[in-house]
Amino acid sequence: MPRSIQLNAKGELTHLLSTEGLPKAILLRILDHAKDFLDVSKMQVRNTDLLAGKSIFNIFFENSTRTRTTFEIAAKKLSADIVNLNVNASSTAKGESLLDTIDNLAAMRADMFVVRHAQSGAPYLIAKHINQVAPHIHVMNAGDGRHAHPTQALLDMFTIRHYKGDFTQLRVAIVGDLLHSRVARSGIHALTTLGVPDIRVVAPLTLLPSGTAEMGVRAFTNLDEGLEDVDVVMMLRLQNERMRGALLPSPQEYFKHYGLTEQRLKRAKSDAIVMHPGPMNRGVEIDSVVADGAQSVILSQVTFGIAVRMAVMSTLNGVAA
Amino acid sequence: MPRSIQLNAKGELTHLLSTEGLPKAILLRILDHAKDFLDVSKMQVRNTDLLAGKSIFNIFFENSTRTRTTFEIAAKKLSADIVNLNVNASSTAKGESLLDTIDNLAAMRADMFVVRHAQSGAPYLIAKHINQVAPHIHVMNAGDGRHAHPTQALLDMFTIRHYKGDFTQLRVAIVGDLLHSRVARSGIHALTTLGVPDIRVVAPLTLLPSGTAEMGVRAFTNLDEGLEDVDVVMMLRLQNERMRGALLPSPQEYFKHYGLTEQRLKRAKSDAIVMHPGPMNRGVEIDSVVADGAQSVILSQVTFGIAVRMAVMSTLNGVAA
Amino acid sequence: MPRSIQLNAKGELTHLLSTEGLPKAILLRILDHAKDFLDVSKMQVRNTDLLAGKSIFNIFFENSTRTRTTFEIAAKKLSADIVNLNVNASSTAKGESLLDTIDNLAAMRADMFVVRHAQSGAPYLIAKHINQVAPHIHVMNAGDGRHAHPTQALLDMFTIRHYKGDFTQLRVAIVGDLLHSRVARSGIHALTTLGVPDIRVVAPLTLLPSGTAEMGVRAFTNLDEGLEDVDVVMMLRLQNERMRGALLPSPQEYFKHYGLTEQRLKRAKSDAIVMHPGPMNRGVEIDSVVADGAQSVILSQVTFGIAVRMAVMSTLNGVAA
Repeated sequence: MPRSIQLNAKGELTHLLSTEGLPKAILLRILDHAKDFLDVSKMQVRNTDLLAGKSIFNIFFENSTRTRTTFEIAAKKLSADIVNLNVNASSTAKGESLLDTIDNLAAMRADMFVVRHAQSGAPYLIAKHINQVAPHIHVMNAGDGRHAHPTQALLDMFTIRHYKGDFTQLRVAIVGDLLHSRVARSGIHALTTLGVPDIRVVAPLTLLPSGTAEMGVRAFTNLDEGLEDVDVVMMLRLQNERMRGALLPSPQEYFKHYGLTEQRLKRAKSDAIVMHPGPMNRGVEIDSVVADGAQSVILSQVTFGIAVRMAVMSTLNGVAA
Repeated sequence: MPRSIQLNAKGELTHLLSTEGLPKAILLRILDHAKDFLDVSKMQVRNTDLLAGKSIFNIFFENSTRTRTTFEIAAKKLSADIVNLNVNASSTAKGESLLDTIDNLAAMRADMFVVRHAQSGAPYLIAKHINQVAPHIHVMNAGDGRHAHPTQALLDMFTIRHYKGDFTQLRVAIVGDLLHSRVARSGIHALTTLGVPDIRVVAPLTLLPSGTAEMGVRAFTNLDEGLEDVDVVMMLRLQNERMRGALLPSPQEYFKHYGLTEQRLKRAKSDAIVMHPGPMNRGVEIDSVVADGAQSVILSQVTFGIAVRMAVMSTLNGVAA
Repeated sequence: MPRSIQLNAKGELTHLLSTEGLPKAILLRILDHAKDFLDVSKMQVRNTDLLAGKSIFNIFFENSTRTRTTFEIAAKKLSADIVNLNVNASSTAKGESLLDTIDNLAAMRADMFVVRHAQSGAPYLIAKHINQVAPHIHVMNAGDGRHAHPTQALLDMFTIRHYKGDFTQLRVAIVGDLLHSRVARSGIHALTTLGVPDIRVVAPLTLLPSGTAEMGVRAFTNLDEGLEDVDVVMMLRLQNERMRGALLPSPQEYFKHYGLTEQRLKRAKSDAIVMHPGPMNRGVEIDSVVADGAQSVILSQVTFGIAVRMAVMSTLNGVAA
């Protein structure tokens, strides 16, 4: 999949599809810009009219009330008009038909598409097509299959920078179902771009993707070892369907070996932060005491996420160029 | 369940969860304030920008298009941003998980939650938790199980005052499925607070809750007797599932004994008003002739309901303090 | 069904229910007004605040995300508040109950209802009732059964005028499932009113309604003959359920005889335009080469549709009187 499709001829961000291949300067500018929308002392997000009169379509081929809501709020706080569309993926099973749907929505004169799709690569296909037929429309990937979830990665980077400052001194462990996680994939690309020298992934062998070494990360199957002296622990959600499958014995067994407990967290630095993209499976991948503990920044991630999505939207619209 | 959670330390309304324990002064102030949003001569509701820039989340764990819409319109007429969330109750079966959902939505920086839930007490649980984690958020109960439906009660009180004036001279009969009705419970508390001296409930024995005497109401199983000389008749909706159950013989049998007909209405005062929270089962609890008759104020209730919800929202936001 | 219900005593448009009986002057005025919202050179739709403070309810008794979205966008571009309601048709099976729903929504003080319903005539029933109980509300038909889809017809007329100018010199062929098509019915009425001298319908005998001659159109069962020298080809969508029924042998067989191919299109004038209301069944009623070809104006129809719906909404609200 070509990555340069995210950038226009001048090298500016015109779609946000993946953190893979996203230039460091653009990534940092989005993080900087997100701060403009945030009153950090009160953890409040500011309203602006930067996108007044713009139409943003939330096109969800895969249902996700929570993610859809974060984009909806970001759009409203920018004074944009937002239209929610739950598109039944079954009615657009054929690629050709997907593009007919997109053509149709583009002809309704939207300014931006937020796209969520169960199939990896669908937002790329859409952006590539949009560049041909309606180049004024910007596409944001809100999660595609196992592939990417770039706004989640950006809000994770915002969170890490907020609490830890300099990326180039950090040790970060990503723990859980690496094999199926678009959050992990997008996070690793962003961490790498930002110069994090020590990125670790921790999972049982059945949930570790091949090729981690090529991505510049170190793989651990032992959680205690993986957490040793890290600054940041990024927990991943264990999808329920995995627990019932052949990949894992049981949620209890998983928690025993890979659940983040207070005890285990002591292996990390004493000021390490704990992150999670939500929704959490308490007692499976994370203990409640840790989820609600002093080192948890999980809810801050959500608040930062609104500001980060506002930053991406206004960057794409050229308002914050 | 503690009721004082509705009020802050200064005794001001900070959540609206129930009419039980709601001070008379606050109740009256909401009714007064609702008039500000109403042009009664034209039965029109005014638009204002009192809540411009505020985010209100309509969090419906139990589906109800009609009720959701009334809050949505009220919010829009106040120029607030409204986000609709249909949350699948099954995904939040565990109390802990419910609060994780709430934490997450609170972190999206809403200013108000409108909560509908099939379980009695859920909005209390949420308000209590919100007071700990995000005390700037106001919670409105849009109906919880069999427990309470305070905005319905407030709009009912507004309607009664509009047509009848002084509460302290009134006879009010509430007719129907008292046992399962949150509308009735909330109504009785409000009527009591406002000093209505004669509150009656009328229902077959199987649908009469125990403890009506403790609530200060008189119970009747005979509709003609219950309606004698009343000023206000509040009909309740008979849920379809009750009719099929063991509690009632059949809709026809119910109508024969408890349906409000023109004939029966003659027992009430000649200027008595007829109310119903909707949706109506015509020919079951109410005859069409009565529903559409000169004494019916059922549609006025709906219009008043928009203004009353606007009054509650702006009161909670401190705008109309 | 009385048609004059669309017009008030002064002959002004007060509801839009059908193109049947719609006076030519009103039809043309809507087409003219739609241009005000369009920047044709850029194919952009303008935002205005003509309907600021107005409430429009999208009441869809039949689900249609795409059509609902076009009305939602039109309303938002006029700065109106729009409320989406998916009303389960099963809960309003009885006519009486449908009107209770309508009464209730009217009492919420909407200014306009956009109604989609699977049953022919439902919007008429609603408009007739609204005239009695809430005459300030305007009703727009967004498609009812096999009966009418007037905004589709208006946008089709806008498209034809945009590309072809004078209606009185045109040959127009409507091709496909005439029997079940509200798009075709509404289109034929509008074309007739606008003075198109040669209107043809082309379909297999099983999909040709009786009485085409009375409507002033010529029927063809041979596509080549029907397309001869036409200026406009209006393709209809073949509903999937028809293909499986007794009416048609198979999609392949249909395409062989009635699918619009490049070869067949050569029978029409060399500058003929090809239209389709969407969504298309490529390879069934239309070949992809034609759908995406130089003569296709299918996506322009969508853009024009937003402007036309804005024109109808503002005309009804008396803003553009």
